[in-house]
Amino acid sequence: MVWDAWGIPAGHKPLSAQIRGLLTQVFGVSGDPVTRRGAGEVPLRDSVLTPARRDGLIEVVGADNVSVDHHDRLLHAGGKSTPDLLRRRADGPQDAPDAVVFPADHEQVFAVLTYCAEHAVAVVPFGGGTSVVGGVDPVRGRFEAVIALDLRRLDTVTDIDPISGTATLGAGLTGPRAEELLAAHGLSLGHFPQSFEFASIGGFAATRSSGQASAGYGRFDDMVQHLKIATPSGTLELGRAPASAAGPDLRELFVGSEGTLGVLTEVTLRVHPIPEAISYLAWSFPDFATGAAALRSVVQAGAAPTVLRLSDEVETGINLARSGDVGGNPVSGCLAITTFEGTEAHVAARSAEASALLAASGGTDLGSAPAREWEHGRFAAPYMRDALLDVAVLCETLETATSWSNLDDLKAKVTAALTDSLAAQATPPLVMCHISHTYPTGASLYFTIIAKQLDDPIAQWHIAKKAAGDAIVASGGTITHHHAVGTDHRPWMSAEVGDLGVRVLRAVKEELDPAGILNPGKLVP
Amino acid sequence: MVWDAWGIPAGHKPLSAQIRGLLTQVFGVSGDPVTRRGAGEVPLRDSVLTPARRDGLIEVVGADNVSVDHHDRLLHAGGKSTPDLLRRRADGPQDAPDAVVFPADHEQVFAVLTYCAEHAVAVVPFGGGTSVVGGVDPVRGRFEAVIALDLRRLDTVTDIDPISGTATLGAGLTGPRAEELLAAHGLSLGHFPQSFEFASIGGFAATRSSGQASAGYGRFDDMVQHLKIATPSGTLELGRAPASAAGPDLRELFVGSEGTLGVLTEVTLRVHPIPEAISYLAWSFPDFATGAAALRSVVQAGAAPTVLRLSDEVETGINLARSGDVGGNPVSGCLAITTFEGTEAHVAARSAEASALLAASGGTDLGSAPAREWEHGRFAAPYMRDALLDVAVLCETLETATSWSNLDDLKAKVTAALTDSLAAQATPPLVMCHISHTYPTGASLYFTIIAKQLDDPIAQWHIAKKAAGDAIVASGGTITHHHAVGTDHRPWMSAEVGDLGVRVLRAVKEELDPAGILNPGKLVP
Repeated sequence: MVWDAWGIPAGHKPLSAQIRGLLTQVFGVSGDPVTRRGAGEVPLRDSVLTPARRDGLIEVVGADNVSVDHHDRLLHAGGKSTPDLLRRRADGPQDAPDAVVFPADHEQVFAVLTYCAEHAVAVVPFGGGTSVVGGVDPVRGRFEAVIALDLRRLDTVTDIDPISGTATLGAGLTGPRAEELLAAHGLSLGHFPQSFEFASIGGFAATRSSGQASAGYGRFDDMVQHLKIATPSGTLELGRAPASAAGPDLRELFVGSEGTLGVLTEVTLRVHPIPEAISYLAWSFPDFATGAAALRSVVQAGAAPTVLRLSDEVETGINLARSGDVGGNPVSGCLAITTFEGTEAHVAARSAEASALLAASGGTDLGSAPAREWEHGRFAAPYMRDALLDVAVLCETLETATSWSNLDDLKAKVTAALTDSLAAQATPPLVMCHISHTYPTGASLYFTIIAKQLDDPIAQWHIAKKAAGDAIVASGGTITHHHAVGTDHRPWMSAEVGDLGVRVLRAVKEELDPAGILNPGKLVP
Repeated sequence: MVWDAWGIPAGHKPLSAQIRGLLTQVFGVSGDPVTRRGAGEVPLRDSVLTPARRDGLIEVVGADNVSVDHHDRLLHAGGKSTPDLLRRRADGPQDAPDAVVFPADHEQVFAVLTYCAEHAVAVVPFGGGTSVVGGVDPVRGRFEAVIALDLRRLDTVTDIDPISGTATLGAGLTGPRAEELLAAHGLSLGHFPQSFEFASIGGFAATRSSGQASAGYGRFDDMVQHLKIATPSGTLELGRAPASAAGPDLRELFVGSEGTLGVLTEVTLRVHPIPEAISYLAWSFPDFATGAAALRSVVQAGAAPTVLRLSDEVETGINLARSGDVGGNPVSGCLAITTFEGTEAHVAARSAEASALLAASGGTDLGSAPAREWEHGRFAAPYMRDALLDVAVLCETLETATSWSNLDDLKAKVTAALTDSLAAQATPPLVMCHISHTYPTGASLYFTIIAKQLDDPIAQWHIAKKAAGDAIVASGGTITHHHAVGTDHRPWMSAEVGDLGVRVLRAVKEELDPAGILNPGKLVP
């Protein structure tokens, strides 16, 4: 992962002349990219980790695994939200953890937590560093120092059980590496969020990630069978069976806990055989409401495809839904993507049933090509964002979810909040939306916002984000469907779970992390 | 509900001569039923509720809704486990709450909790009273008195949303009444546990109930969208969207909380249109392992029927799996039941896919009749238990769940523990088992145990139950799949969630119920 943008250098492509032309026309920007600083030129805030603390950590994990190196600290400076990336592009020193610690296993994680709790060192658990909500910001809080606890060495797959369809994955495994290790056993996890290429198993669980194949394989939280968790108060092992009535499901306290209650070290997950067959089919709907009703009919009938998505008119029009190739080959109306995975028989049966419902609900079959194009380009959007930021165009996303009956109203209210708040700053935006995750009772809404940058784009976005968040809460949506809370959504947590809900979270944290060292400033208000 | 047995008087039938003959032959019992006491003859422990406390409660809910009447207290004396029923059949005074309180709504529930927390009165939330784990035992604990908080007046359906497929149900609604109110809107919940006819919506949620159609409609916890909860510390409203990444899912703390953390007053649930079509199909498998592998193949392919069950050889042989008509018309090998519900198209597609898999896995199609017979008799087993208890035959059930790969071993170990522990008391049992709930990664095991009663059948069963519970824990199962913890499974809670998990539960309880009045002696060790 590069320090000041998404992904790897090879993924970055300059904008095409056509797109630059469009941006000039719509937003009045020049389209010429700025020159970014090299990593070596970037000053960091000084590390305040004392030699004594450094020695203490070295005693736990070894000298090779405690780094105060400039580049290591820079790469753990935070996540990948647009404000994060704008901060990296700004002059002046960058925030960074005081050290980066690389434990080898659960026992070392526990020992690091014990050490840090005793010595007032804050700990930011760090997986792929792809948070877009400030979830891995190196917040020192009231502590002497803050370390990033990088879990990359927890990278094994154990306890593969092909009969039950489960495997235990180390928290530090990235999406591609997990798939590679499972593939050696003919298995797949099937969790493909946009962050797939860089994010980690522990991060997926800690943030309630949801992948693009969630209609078929479920959200990441649905996949979790068992968790091993290190906390300053001890180790938890939760999940003894596929389902249980033995009291509250405590796993659900730690899935989504964002490193504030403990560090997930091992996650046992539901896996499945590598699909024997995959079928692709794209659809066009005359408008978003018709398309949404069609998706609903499929999911409520119990006939959900593996992937099920619907772009609204704006997103379909500029073709962001397909390969990030803005401007090329638009589909009229609203584009929907379906894929079907499984045995040949299952794919045949399910695609026949779902296709009949989509057609009956007003869908026009577009064949497989647009669905294959979507799949080909599905991890490319964050790179496109960097190219836009480089030409002084603001680009950010946010997401929510609500019931089917509230979907249109919520979409309209959030769109209006974003449009109005940016237009009021003389930067009227382009607001696009798609449904990427569906449930029998409702769906997610994922917004992409593009506007001309002001001189202080972070402040500019902050105003829009606040307007959108307030609109979501007022309109009955959840403040986040799959990006988690971090620092950015924390102002709305009381609205989400109530003041008493916040007290419950605090009580659990006090029990497990009495010193409060775990990921300060995140999640819990 | 009658006070000393399951259900209503009309449900009780004497054993047939054929069954009595079988019992005499196998267990050496006479087959002549004992005479049970009338409710009016039963002495109760004295109510210790002082007039001042009674007046205090009357101030909250009105004089008509605070009862110290003998019959009301007797009907709230506890649940319906076999030890419960054996205690009712024993001489001497019965345990009972000191009063029964019937609040009208959420606000009254909250006011009762506030009053009781201030005045050291324990509160046992009471729905249908069908607990089989001691979950509604009138435990006074360290408090001055204990009341049963009967929620039957919270009996409305509100916020019906047919688009989203959701409805908000009062906690006191029974299964049949909920279905009746939903049916007026063309909707159904589809939750049919064996307790369906008497148990309540709040009870289903508080105990993580799982119905016989769980393969199709999910467990009750899967259905929960939103909860309204009264606690001594205030009111919680949880669940803003079909799915969310806004931190831990706090609903999952209260689903399964068994009245120890708060009182569920309203539950918003996923509902579905009354099925257009239902198809029934029964199967025979040569042995349990073959049948289990067949069920697994269907569930893992994503082709699960609405109902999917498999009885082992013993249960199939004595035909308990069908209508409780023991001895009649046995099927060879192991009987499996499938039903398919939904639109005509869905039923056709799904039954074709599932049937092909079951046939390919060694199943023989038995036609629809055995599946219809099973459905017809599916709520009858608890009545049969009463008839057996009346002729001095012990009959009890217990359940667990585990991964598919561990299923055979767990079944063998639990069967051995039950057999050995009862044989050692010179009462060798008949142990039957079925799979009633399936998941991609595993399944439940539901055991029925029948043996000759000793003079102290409660002590006799306690030995067998302890052996079974220890075997479950040692063999990697969960201590309860859908019966909850109550008092009976509490000894194994530390094994289930670990000592630190218990500390987390205690911390949450301390925050919400600092006086500890809520359902003392249940769930939390």
